[in-house]
Amino acid sequence: MDRDKILLTPGPLTTTLRTKLAMLKDWGSWDADFNAVTASVRKSLLKIIHAAESHVVVPLQGSGTFSVEAAVATVVPHSGHVLVLDNGAYCKRAARLTTLMGRRCTLMPFDEAQPVSAQALDDKLRTESTVTHVILIHCETGAGVLNPLQAIADVCERHRKGLIVDAMSSFGALPIDARTTRFDALVAASGKCLEGVPGMGFVFIRKAILEACAGQSQSLAMDLYDQYIYMEKTTQWRFTPPTHVVVALHEAIAQFEAEGGQPARLARYTRNYETLARGMSVLGFRPFLDPSVQAPIIVTFHAPGDPKYDFKTFYAAARARGFILYPGKLTTAETFRVGCIGAIGPDEMEQAVHAIALTLQDMGIASAAPAA
Amino acid sequence: MDRDKILLTPGPLTTTLRTKLAMLKDWGSWDADFNAVTASVRKSLLKIIHAAESHVVVPLQGSGTFSVEAAVATVVPHSGHVLVLDNGAYCKRAARLTTLMGRRCTLMPFDEAQPVSAQALDDKLRTESTVTHVILIHCETGAGVLNPLQAIADVCERHRKGLIVDAMSSFGALPIDARTTRFDALVAASGKCLEGVPGMGFVFIRKAILEACAGQSQSLAMDLYDQYIYMEKTTQWRFTPPTHVVVALHEAIAQFEAEGGQPARLARYTRNYETLARGMSVLGFRPFLDPSVQAPIIVTFHAPGDPKYDFKTFYAAARARGFILYPGKLTTAETFRVGCIGAIGPDEMEQAVHAIALTLQDMGIASAAPAA
Repeated sequence: MDRDKILLTPGPLTTTLRTKLAMLKDWGSWDADFNAVTASVRKSLLKIIHAAESHVVVPLQGSGTFSVEAAVATVVPHSGHVLVLDNGAYCKRAARLTTLMGRRCTLMPFDEAQPVSAQALDDKLRTESTVTHVILIHCETGAGVLNPLQAIADVCERHRKGLIVDAMSSFGALPIDARTTRFDALVAASGKCLEGVPGMGFVFIRKAILEACAGQSQSLAMDLYDQYIYMEKTTQWRFTPPTHVVVALHEAIAQFEAEGGQPARLARYTRNYETLARGMSVLGFRPFLDPSVQAPIIVTFHAPGDPKYDFKTFYAAARARGFILYPGKLTTAETFRVGCIGAIGPDEMEQAVHAIALTLQDMGIASAAPAA
Repeated sequence: MDRDKILLTPGPLTTTLRTKLAMLKDWGSWDADFNAVTASVRKSLLKIIHAAESHVVVPLQGSGTFSVEAAVATVVPHSGHVLVLDNGAYCKRAARLTTLMGRRCTLMPFDEAQPVSAQALDDKLRTESTVTHVILIHCETGAGVLNPLQAIADVCERHRKGLIVDAMSSFGALPIDARTTRFDALVAASGKCLEGVPGMGFVFIRKAILEACAGQSQSLAMDLYDQYIYMEKTTQWRFTPPTHVVVALHEAIAQFEAEGGQPARLARYTRNYETLARGMSVLGFRPFLDPSVQAPIIVTFHAPGDPKYDFKTFYAAARARGFILYPGKLTTAETFRVGCIGAIGPDEMEQAVHAIALTLQDMGIASAAPAA
């Protein structure tokens, strides 16, 4: 039957009906009612990571990648040198956008099955003295690894380097505390763990560096300093905001707070992850990552070794049973991914595992164990 | 009572309930169902301006300004020289984003109460031989002027200059025909005359120049060539699309087509404009523009000369009666603006005029005539 499918994807993800219902109204982008929504969203975002004292938060139209690019363009001077700690696809994307905009950029490669190393960064910064900024992806969803934000931030602080954190897939679920973790910019988006709909990002910028950001961006649309100044002066967005997306995020945040904020969200996602991991293991699936480095956000599984397996058939059959899986993003191994985030709980995860079990049966695959 | 207000604003604007209801579902951005929606939207957009033979269309996340910036970044080489035909605020914005990204840019000033002149452009291009591209705002909503697209396009073609058209506020309402009007890029957005919700733009790029655009953008997020190539290869967006906005646009386009396409939309907006102009004139309001150069999109009125008038009170009182007006954007005269676009008809315009009449009464203003 035509029921809404459950998205086991890392954003866009399944949102509540209440969040979507908030979009059934049109808002004037100049009107005080809408500006109050923007102000409330910004205040709530600062509260989530205890950043009201130390940072401002600037919303931006577009996908999360737009906000990452805007953060680099706004925070890093033209003469800057960015070091990207690379353990996955999103790290490489951050390096690419940095290089394209004309900032000097160095990739520091790590194993994509492992967190990046604060010790290695410390060593690197002793010799690479021209580096001005470090980019870290908090949760690298290419494989699903949780990177050590606190340790990296400490090394950057000790070496007096700016730190830009892509917290796209962790914000709202994993603990981040701006009072004890020092960063110049931190980026996330509406359609991830806050469970809003996609269409806007937001960037926290440290107040102490804000004035130095004036005039650094070579992009008008992505100039977060300009956006910030205009918003403070007028309470409005500089250019047409995605009004319905903003209002949906406002509603999603209200539910986030009612659920118990970040700790409650992490607890739910952890239960989702554990339910998934346990169930998939019974079917013979092997996760790509060691559980000790796995964030409870998205899990990469090795493809079954059975020659009857192919991803397209597997995806289509799970989809027909109501669950949308996600392809792998690794170059080294055949994998697929299952998200644990969104407005879903352990019940949905149990049903997802059950649908996957039936899918394997249909495909005549007795065990999902990967090739030896 | 708490009823939805009518937005007399140039986007975001009032959309139909059917358009908003399309957002009550979550979509996987990798899923074939969603990709079919994107493909259908792109096909419909090409049809609206008869561009399927000559152009491709590339959707982009963010507000319309993001798409204008992306068009310039993608189409104009680093060594290019852009001439902006300036008769309003949006022209100046286009010049600013062009200059910021490091392209040479010259502003050619015109009276903001008049269309730009094709003859003057022709003269200019005879002497300014380094110009490679011209930017034209089709309908400059700063004042509401309709600029002569066909005549400008003819001059550009004759001089072999690229033409970039910002058709943000005209696309879907005013006639544009890519078969007879030559342009390198034309930009519009979801939340304007197609009556979708805001959150994405789209850019038509002439096929003949497409390959030359490869690698020109210094922005990854705004590289329309890269977005195009990826979309053709995978049917997907490069970065997370604003799924709900895309689906709402799809639904809005279905209604646009059912209404009778661009001619029917223009006819409705023209009736809206005429109803507004007639009613406001009875109240003593004077339009800023001569009717012969006025687009039926947004009308600028002089503020009443009565000393009891102030915009804030006027706005709040009209708002309390259910109508959201729009502030003026001119530096030379005190004005306000009233949009004629969105899912509204002459009945709503008559009610708007009536609400404005009652508002003037409340403010003790006998005539809305401007100061002499």
